[in-house]
Amino acid sequence: MKYYLAVDVGGTKILAGLVDEKGQVLAWRRYPMRRGSQEEALAAIFSACDDFVSSLPGQPRPAALGLGTVGHIDPERGLWLQSYNIPIHRPVEIARLLTERYGLPAAVDNDVRCAARGEWAFGGGQSRVMLYLNVGTGIGSALICQGKLLLGADHYAGEVGYMVMNWEGEPQRLEPMASGGGLIASAQAMLPQFPESPLNRGELHAAAVFEAARSGDALGGFLARRAVDALGTALANLASAYNPDTIRLGGSVVKDPWFLKQVERRMRTLCLPETLGGLRCFARSALDPAQVGMLGAGALAMEVYG
Amino acid sequence: MKYYLAVDVGGTKILAGLVDEKGQVLAWRRYPMRRGSQEEALAAIFSACDDFVSSLPGQPRPAALGLGTVGHIDPERGLWLQSYNIPIHRPVEIARLLTERYGLPAAVDNDVRCAARGEWAFGGGQSRVMLYLNVGTGIGSALICQGKLLLGADHYAGEVGYMVMNWEGEPQRLEPMASGGGLIASAQAMLPQFPESPLNRGELHAAAVFEAARSGDALGGFLARRAVDALGTALANLASAYNPDTIRLGGSVVKDPWFLKQVERRMRTLCLPETLGGLRCFARSALDPAQVGMLGAGALAMEVYG
Repeated sequence: MKYYLAVDVGGTKILAGLVDEKGQVLAWRRYPMRRGSQEEALAAIFSACDDFVSSLPGQPRPAALGLGTVGHIDPERGLWLQSYNIPIHRPVEIARLLTERYGLPAAVDNDVRCAARGEWAFGGGQSRVMLYLNVGTGIGSALICQGKLLLGADHYAGEVGYMVMNWEGEPQRLEPMASGGGLIASAQAMLPQFPESPLNRGELHAAAVFEAARSGDALGGFLARRAVDALGTALANLASAYNPDTIRLGGSVVKDPWFLKQVERRMRTLCLPETLGGLRCFARSALDPAQVGMLGAGALAMEVYG
Repeated sequence: MKYYLAVDVGGTKILAGLVDEKGQVLAWRRYPMRRGSQEEALAAIFSACDDFVSSLPGQPRPAALGLGTVGHIDPERGLWLQSYNIPIHRPVEIARLLTERYGLPAAVDNDVRCAARGEWAFGGGQSRVMLYLNVGTGIGSALICQGKLLLGADHYAGEVGYMVMNWEGEPQRLEPMASGGGLIASAQAMLPQFPESPLNRGELHAAAVFEAARSGDALGGFLARRAVDALGTALANLASAYNPDTIRLGGSVVKDPWFLKQVERRMRTLCLPETLGGLRCFARSALDPAQVGMLGAGALAMEVYG
C-alpha cells in the first residue's frame, strides 16, 4: 500500500491529509489560510504543511505530495502561475519548493482538475470517458479519458463557464446564469424589482434561490429556470463533443437534487440518442464534498508518482 | 520508409492509393461507388481494392491498410456498425475482411476522424492539441491531443453539428445553420419570400450563398451572417472547453476565405484572452481537399500499425 500527502489550499482554509491509494484518509488537519500578500499565502501553506508533517510520526511514510489550489497552474512544470482569489502575482515553483522542504516528489494542479482526479480514482468507479463539471462559485470542467486528464495547450482546458449560450445578440455566458456567484449577483441586481420575494430576507445563496423557486417565488423561479436551461444545454453540448460514459457533478450548486434532476432532464431532451446511449452514469460526485479537494490532491500525487 | 494502402470510401466514389509515411502518394486510382444495397456497397469496395492491389507490382509492399468511410464506426474493433448514406444496416467486420483478403493488418474509421489524422500527420505540422472541424454537407469534429484522437465512450465524440446554439426556446442546432446541407435547405425554404434573390437562379450550394451575400442579396446575407455567428460561437465554445493550440477546418463550406475570415473574427471576439493566447494556428486544412480522405486513411493505418 502506498500513501500520499494531500494538501487542499482554498481561499479561507487549508486541509492537509495522509491518503492511501484506495482513497482512505488516515489523518487530516485543517488550517487557516491567509491571503494578505503572495508571501503571506505561501507562508500559510508551508506552515500548515510543516505542522501536519510533524504530526505524522507513527504513520506510514508518504511516497509523494499532491497540492490542489485555485488559479492558473502548469502541472507539467509544477508552477503556480497566477491566481486572483489567493494573491499570486508572480509565478511560484511550488512543486520544487515543496520537494525541497519535505523531501518528497510533489505535484500541483488546480482544484477542479484535482476533484476530477479524486472522483475518477476514489469516487464512483473508473470510466472510459468521464466529464466532471464543478458548479460552485464559478463553473469549470475536466475531462478524463482512459485515465488521462486533458490539460489543453496551455493548461486552460475546461473553461466552460465562459461558454456562450446564445449564437445571436449580446453574448450570454454560462457562468453568470448558472454558477453560485452568478445566481447571487443576478438575485441582488433584480431584488429591487421583486420587493415581495423571500430572497429579500436572509442570506443569498444558490440553495435559497432554489428554495424560493420551490415555494412559488417569481424571482427564484426565473433564476432557477434560467440556470436549469443554461446548464442542461451546456451539458448536452459537452456530451455531443465528448461522448462521455460518465458525467459527475460537484460544487455547492448541484447539492440540490430538485435542481440537478431538472438539469439532467433538460440535457437528456437535447442529446442525440447515440450520445445518451453511451451515457451510463449522470450523478453528483460520490466523494464527501468536505474532503473532495484533499482526496483530489492525493489522487494527483498518485497519478503522477504512484 | 514504410508504405500504406489507403482507401477513401465516399457516397459516390472510392479512392485507393499507396501512401508513404511522409504523406507522399506514390500511386492512386479512382473507382465508382455503388450503394443499391449493403452487399453491392461492399462488393464495390472489394472490387476497387482488388484492382488497385493488382496494379501495384513494382511498387513497395504496404505495411498495413487504412480505410475511411461514412457512418458509425468502431475503430477499436474494426467494425462498420451503421451508415445511412451508404446503406450499412448490419454491422460489418470490415477490418477483418480486408485483412483476410489482402494479407495486411487493417484499420477503419470515419471520414472526419481520418481527415483529422491526415492533417495531424501530413498537413500543417503536429501540434499539442488540434481541433479539426469539418464543415461540409454536415458538421463533425475530431480532437487530437498529444497524438491521440479522442473517440469517446462509444466512438461518438465530435458530433458537434448537434450542438444547441441557444439556451432558451426551441433548440437551434449548429448543423442546420452552418453546414452546406443546412445552408441549401434553408435557402430552398426561404426562396419563395425572396423572389428577387439571385439564389433563385443556378445551382444552390454554400459558395452561391456566400457569393449572393457579397453581392448585397438579402437572403444570402441573412444565411451567411447566421452561419458566421453560429459557427464562430461554436468554435469559441469548443476552444474554451479544449484549449487547442491549433484549429484546422476542412470541408466545402470553409473553402471561401471571406466566410472563414468572418468566422475567425467572431470566434476571437468571444474567446477568453487566455484561450486565444494558446491558439497559435487557425487555418484551413493544409491538405489537398481532393486527397484528404485518402491521406487520412493512410494516416490511420500508420497510427495503428506504423
